[in-house]
Amino acid sequence: MYKVDLNCDLGESFGIHKVQEQSDILTYITSANIACGFHSGDASVMRETVELAIENNVKIGAHPGLPDLVGFGRREMSVTPQEAYDMVVYQIGALQGVLTTFNEPMQHVKPHGALYNMAAKNTELAQAIAQAVYDISPELVLFGLSESELTKAGENIGLQTAHEVFADRTYQSDGTLTARTQGDALITDPDYAIEQVVKMVKESTVMSQQLIEIPLRAHTICIHGDGEKALTFTKNIKKALEQNDVSVKAIQDWKESL
Amino acid sequence: MYKVDLNCDLGESFGIHKVQEQSDILTYITSANIACGFHSGDASVMRETVELAIENNVKIGAHPGLPDLVGFGRREMSVTPQEAYDMVVYQIGALQGVLTTFNEPMQHVKPHGALYNMAAKNTELAQAIAQAVYDISPELVLFGLSESELTKAGENIGLQTAHEVFADRTYQSDGTLTARTQGDALITDPDYAIEQVVKMVKESTVMSQQLIEIPLRAHTICIHGDGEKALTFTKNIKKALEQNDVSVKAIQDWKESL
Amino acid sequence: MYKVDLNCDLGESFGIHKVQEQSDILTYITSANIACGFHSGDASVMRETVELAIENNVKIGAHPGLPDLVGFGRREMSVTPQEAYDMVVYQIGALQGVLTTFNEPMQHVKPHGALYNMAAKNTELAQAIAQAVYDISPELVLFGLSESELTKAGENIGLQTAHEVFADRTYQSDGTLTARTQGDALITDPDYAIEQVVKMVKESTVMSQQLIEIPLRAHTICIHGDGEKALTFTKNIKKALEQNDVSVKAIQDWKESL
Amino acid sequence: MYKVDLNCDLGESFGIHKVQEQSDILTYITSANIACGFHSGDASVMRETVELAIENNVKIGAHPGLPDLVGFGRREMSVTPQEAYDMVVYQIGALQGVLTTFNEPMQHVKPHGALYNMAAKNTELAQAIAQAVYDISPELVLFGLSESELTKAGENIGLQTAHEVFADRTYQSDGTLTARTQGDALITDPDYAIEQVVKMVKESTVMSQQLIEIPLRAHTICIHGDGEKALTFTKNIKKALEQNDVSVKAIQDWKESL
Repeated sequence: MYKVDLNCDLGESFGIHKVQEQSDILTYITSANIACGFHSGDASVMRETVELAIENNVKIGAHPGLPDLVGFGRREMSVTPQEAYDMVVYQIGALQGVLTTFNEPMQHVKPHGALYNMAAKNTELAQAIAQAVYDISPELVLFGLSESELTKAGENIGLQTAHEVFADRTYQSDGTLTARTQGDALITDPDYAIEQVVKMVKESTVMSQQLIEIPLRAHTICIHGDGEKALTFTKNIKKALEQNDVSVKAIQDWKESL
Repeated sequence: MYKVDLNCDLGESFGIHKVQEQSDILTYITSANIACGFHSGDASVMRETVELAIENNVKIGAHPGLPDLVGFGRREMSVTPQEAYDMVVYQIGALQGVLTTFNEPMQHVKPHGALYNMAAKNTELAQAIAQAVYDISPELVLFGLSESELTKAGENIGLQTAHEVFADRTYQSDGTLTARTQGDALITDPDYAIEQVVKMVKESTVMSQQLIEIPLRAHTICIHGDGEKALTFTKNIKKALEQNDVSVKAIQDWKESL
Repeated sequence: MYKVDLNCDLGESFGIHKVQEQSDILTYITSANIACGFHSGDASVMRETVELAIENNVKIGAHPGLPDLVGFGRREMSVTPQEAYDMVVYQIGALQGVLTTFNEPMQHVKPHGALYNMAAKNTELAQAIAQAVYDISPELVLFGLSESELTKAGENIGLQTAHEVFADRTYQSDGTLTARTQGDALITDPDYAIEQVVKMVKESTVMSQQLIEIPLRAHTICIHGDGEKALTFTKNIKKALEQNDVSVKAIQDWKESL
Repeated sequence: MYKVDLNCDLGESFGIHKVQEQSDILTYITSANIACGFHSGDASVMRETVELAIENNVKIGAHPGLPDLVGFGRREMSVTPQEAYDMVVYQIGALQGVLTTFNEPMQHVKPHGALYNMAAKNTELAQAIAQAVYDISPELVLFGLSESELTKAGENIGLQTAHEVFADRTYQSDGTLTARTQGDALITDPDYAIEQVVKMVKESTVMSQQLIEIPLRAHTICIHGDGEKALTFTKNIKKALEQNDVSVKAIQDWKESL
């Protein structure tokens, strides 16, 4: 039987400055990526989000970002590998502190926004991030864009590495996501999105915008928790996966087979 | 034989914004309180400072502060006990992350600046901070102003708690430090300062500015690492202590007797 | 005929971190207090909010706060009068920069949150803020809690000063607002709130929670722009005022009579 | 007779976090670029630095940077032209606020660090920054790397634009500065540096590292105010210029001839 993890970014408010999140999404996902204070997520929001995830039996990972609160960590910054290493160590540690007070283990680390995108392409940055995760704990699973420099760096260093695909994004023939600045970056037809997701998980391929079938691995699917339709969409994805013999399970439960 | 720990705040630069520190001070002190990013100390400065402390065989503690970079955490803020708990957990965790990459244990936690001062007087805040330290690890030693609400809270919750005295500050009859806004807050005569330190450690008393001898415990002495004379002063304090049968040792080595 | 200004805090989002605001509120109010980057409101949000206010013919004021983004400027901080002066000058200047690019004058300054509350009670802080406003321009109107240290400082220095009342808050016999930590701080019955507002404007008194009628001036009424009922409430207040011979007009149009 | 302006970055401390600056440098330079809070320079440091500049009769300009305090604004960030426009407007406005309280006019605007470097190459960013300066006041002089996209954008929009050269940096044949990552980026021989400066001012050329003489304009020379030798170096540059018939004068006094 096939297995897949469903992950979602959470805890991305800062004080009373809110990022709209559907906390009900926790009833459908299996892994939560929790912001660690750099692109969003102050210490109190982190605690509240961790508590919510535990209540919903959702596994928890760190979601470290660039130190760019106003830009939400979405703007590329020319950080050195050493700086990336340091900021990832700091942020994982901070969330680990919160988790310790709940006696809850950390499952994974998934870089956020521009840090995620840069690490998908930049080998040195990817290695620095993988090293930071490894140095904190070799038991952590590294989440990265499927078939990217980040997943490669994770595998090379000996981390269990989850290849991530996106439910509502289109792909280019080189395996990258179509840039959001392009008109066709998002899949707006939910049925087509779900069909693509099932195909990625079961057949390990996706059709690019250039109509070339490209290989990838789909260990975890990124779900967006904001927007009105997020809840219904997630529910339907989960249902479709299960109807297609795909078991939706947190990475924790099957990471040995990564 | 008497024992005492010598501690000093370190890692209080932020990027290239420097706080003058005499890194040679590490050759005399036994414990370093390392800033954790809120009042100062970015992730890279933290790593560099940790490395320096380890090289000098100095034990390391977290030095969490208020989120007030421009005010260096010295301005009181009306944070709730829950907020204090959350920010202490976050900051201890962040430093713990850095220490993990060096495979180095954390010895203690000492709140910084206004957080330290508020916790010395405010019972609820003191309890929240002690709880945060305890929830991260009951093995951590809590440093607080001698005979204050913070040390009381630490002892009540079951933490090993180090009562801290100051080498170059004068005391009021209620056991608090003379406020820095007062003309006589600082002891400018190094000989008198050293004499006071030795007396505090060996006799567990200090003469207040009101000429009343007050009881206190002196487990750890706060040394200031900035200023030109810091190095000589610290060297002389250490020498005087040792000449007076006081063994200068990190808390780690004798915390069972706290 | 009576006159009154209706003001509302706006532009209190930070990047994509949103504070829920009803922008339709701009069709009812006469003055907008725009956050200047310290407690909220980044440079781009400021520009967007200024543009929106101008489109709605709403007069604009600076809303400087404490440097506490995570606490939204609501936590008291022990800033010195000089620091308060400096941060108010900086923030007024920043908004003035934005307004200059729209060729739009600044009408007023209203401190935010804890800075507003501290300045209502603390004479030195109030004087420093009034001085900052005056030094930027004696033409600016200073908004402060009615009959407080801040309005007194504004009047003493020669600024046109608008005494502010709150539509949905109860008062204590000393003229202060009932603290939000008290159960009866908020008026939940909209009809009663509107009745109180009309009485404050026309009779210059309010009934305290201790049932003592206290004198105050009501030049401008603070409206909250968040919450689902804000729009209806504001509309009804405006209607009630106009039905009671109170002309709702921006301070700019009648500041000579302050 | 030739004329040139000598400028230096100042006010780049943040609270007690200091960037070493030789304030005596103010006795030699003619223009100061004052940090505006984003890469450094809090509101109080800004006031103190403005006061110092005025006392030394040095003309003042805004030195807006990227919102990257920990990286000191030296790390490139993928900001949009609109974001660059907004952050420049905000920062110029903030310094303008401080200057207003001293009744002192602003002379110029010089972007800082990575913003300066990106604007030298990126036409859209350069235009956005020039537009921001122009929209605040067409009387402001824009400082940019000599013969760069930024000076071009300034001239195109109708601003008086000062072409800037560097006293201690080497040049590439395309007119850019040799990157600091290169071994030969800095000129370490002060005599050679001074010779190059005089040549740039009088002959409007510089010899590139590839030994090609390239044309540029030298209206203002960037001096570094940090480092032990800064003071002597600046004094010697000034002396050499004056001995070579170059009058060292603030741009303000001769901006009509730009």
